[in-house]
Amino acid sequence: MNEMLYGLKGTILYSGGKDEIRVAEHGTVVCENGISRGIFPQLPDCYRDIPVYDYTDRLIIPGLTDLHVHAPQYSFRALDMDLELIEWLNTHTFPEEARYVEKEYAERAYEKFVKDLRKGATVNAAVFATLHADAAKILMEFLEEAKIRSLVGKVNMDRNSPDDLCENTGKALADTKRWICETREKYDYVSPILTPRFIPTCSDELLRGLGELQRKYHLPVQSHLSENRKEIAWVQELCPETSCYGEAYDRFGLFGGECPTIMAHCVHCTEEEIALLGKRRVTVAHCPQSNMNLASGMAPVRRYVEEGILVGLGSDVAGGTSLSIFRAMAEAVQVSKMRYACMDDRLKPLSVEEVFYMGTKGGGAFFGNVGSLEEGYRFDAVVLDDWNLRSVRRLTPKERLERIIYLGDDRNVLSKFVEGERLF
Amino acid sequence: MNEMLYGLKGTILYSGGKDEIRVAEHGTVVCENGISRGIFPQLPDCYRDIPVYDYTDRLIIPGLTDLHVHAPQYSFRALDMDLELIEWLNTHTFPEEARYVEKEYAERAYEKFVKDLRKGATVNAAVFATLHADAAKILMEFLEEAKIRSLVGKVNMDRNSPDDLCENTGKALADTKRWICETREKYDYVSPILTPRFIPTCSDELLRGLGELQRKYHLPVQSHLSENRKEIAWVQELCPETSCYGEAYDRFGLFGGECPTIMAHCVHCTEEEIALLGKRRVTVAHCPQSNMNLASGMAPVRRYVEEGILVGLGSDVAGGTSLSIFRAMAEAVQVSKMRYACMDDRLKPLSVEEVFYMGTKGGGAFFGNVGSLEEGYRFDAVVLDDWNLRSVRRLTPKERLERIIYLGDDRNVLSKFVEGERLF
Repeated sequence: MNEMLYGLKGTILYSGGKDEIRVAEHGTVVCENGISRGIFPQLPDCYRDIPVYDYTDRLIIPGLTDLHVHAPQYSFRALDMDLELIEWLNTHTFPEEARYVEKEYAERAYEKFVKDLRKGATVNAAVFATLHADAAKILMEFLEEAKIRSLVGKVNMDRNSPDDLCENTGKALADTKRWICETREKYDYVSPILTPRFIPTCSDELLRGLGELQRKYHLPVQSHLSENRKEIAWVQELCPETSCYGEAYDRFGLFGGECPTIMAHCVHCTEEEIALLGKRRVTVAHCPQSNMNLASGMAPVRRYVEEGILVGLGSDVAGGTSLSIFRAMAEAVQVSKMRYACMDDRLKPLSVEEVFYMGTKGGGAFFGNVGSLEEGYRFDAVVLDDWNLRSVRRLTPKERLERIIYLGDDRNVLSKFVEGERLF
Repeated sequence: MNEMLYGLKGTILYSGGKDEIRVAEHGTVVCENGISRGIFPQLPDCYRDIPVYDYTDRLIIPGLTDLHVHAPQYSFRALDMDLELIEWLNTHTFPEEARYVEKEYAERAYEKFVKDLRKGATVNAAVFATLHADAAKILMEFLEEAKIRSLVGKVNMDRNSPDDLCENTGKALADTKRWICETREKYDYVSPILTPRFIPTCSDELLRGLGELQRKYHLPVQSHLSENRKEIAWVQELCPETSCYGEAYDRFGLFGGECPTIMAHCVHCTEEEIALLGKRRVTVAHCPQSNMNLASGMAPVRRYVEEGILVGLGSDVAGGTSLSIFRAMAEAVQVSKMRYACMDDRLKPLSVEEVFYMGTKGGGAFFGNVGSLEEGYRFDAVVLDDWNLRSVRRLTPKERLERIIYLGDDRNVLSKFVEGERLF
């Protein structure tokens, strides 16, 4: 499918780094075999005869990355958002996730999730499924078919969970191993990621086993970290020998270093934990809307940026209600401003440039050379039509992008390319 | 236009009070001459023969109220949101507002604003124009034509403003008086509201004159209060004899009591100011998104609710980016949770019931008997189609409404009725 050479012409925007959005007005980005050959104001001679699809003055940006999303929770997004994390898990999340033991239910629900995810600007996603390996495989099939580059996790949980969501440790590890072997080389776009739910639901034995699987199969890991104060206190109770929540993963080799790791939330990390995040090159999935909805708090993202910690954005559906990473960008700015205004004015608010970086290159880095349209990156492009967001006043390309970040939705996603292939 | 009698059938939701959303599934609300005659599970005999428009399982709710929106700022919504209030006013707001001296520009810009406002679920709006009386009249014409029940303010400002937006005090009062006389009995849906911009831009003489106009014509007043800490310090400097910002209006009879008053923001009110808000029955326009975008802070809305202070919601475009009052409801909940989690856990978060009340009955009360579909209210109804928000799981009517609050947009507004007349 990748033997192709063509250009897309339009107003191209991409992150030039944390503090810069670069613009190529009436530029052309060249795709060869699924890889960008660069962005050109005028096509050089060697590309003179290639087909160019001209999107005129529409915006072309790299595909976005959702670093943290729970597929089975999509069915109850935006409902009963009046609870905090632990209560919400028990009242809504666990009963819903238990239903994914039925393959027929999983098929209906995951089909809907993937269909809606595909419509938006997200090209890469790190996805939690449930503990049901069969349902996780169904989800992987749908994502593969939709050409959404994804890391999908069969969830592991063997304690402090309702009976119908509590795995036997040995069986959990055996199921996980089988699922890894069945899926790790099966797909073009989808691969497995180890997914201990979070420390409160994972015994040491389970984590030890997952650590062994990690080293055997060189898989990445995703989990939750320091989201909610009550949760953190609970972890401290469960793991009195660790000095921070992160160490509870780190003991078993599940916290960065040789093990590529996404930790969602990181709202209340201690100094020691922040140092460990940096040292182990863990990627933080910042989920501002979820942190608001579940009254978790406001993550010190400016601090992470200053410390050089890797940060991307997550929708965290259904702690977050919306699959849109544009909305996550806007909310990351907004939450950083609330934090600045009300908690700590030493950490200045995030800029649009910074959150655009996080939603493209920042999160994309976890998936390889993705998240930009610059030469050498995977050719994942989203064409945006902002016809419904026009002003009486003429906007610059960067202003148009900013308006889409604050106000856009899937109506604005006109076309989407993954590794050079046009999805719609 | 109001000699009519008919029913709308569907799943009817309305606020039964601050803590309750009432549901009439497959109910019919009867409209007679623009007024609701009540909601009926089965139509009584006296209405047996009236025409009933059956929206089947779609949701029917009262029209929403936007208590604070700046029409001329719509053209630069969602742009350069990296500044705080005073800087943002000087960099973006004032230069744009100065353009409304040109009637042709005002026509183009206000037409777009009203067109977009009409598409959404908002039926009532308290609107700031600019200081230009002619442009304010253009805005009023568009709103009248669109049948949006509105209070429109020609803005007054005679100090601390750029040259092209600084009125001569005498001329300001004369212009305002003429504009009031020309518009106060002209329209069915639109009427004037006195609009001193805020204390820093209004001299005592101007405020005194506006107070006199208020008493002469019995007009309501709208302005800004205690939005931003720097602004409050500035007011303190300008009015050293007042003990709080609110008193700076109150000195001239422009702060509730006999003068129906909307004060936008109220983020940092002192104890004394909160007491005055209650005593004078001032309506607070809570604008959560604007307060985030301009890093103003998080208003203690729970406190206002507890004190029995009147509270409605405002989009505050362009401090807020979106005209949607659904979004303002969701953000009011979210900001209250952040406040609870990070500032003061004595003030518990707002509930969906409470914000739905604020966006319907709460804000509506400023416009008369509006904001409900119960008997005796103006018949302002919005029909919502949530086809794109459906779940694999069956939702209750209240859950469907909650999802629209978090995720809906103008695509979900299928039909809109104002005083019984169908707009679309």
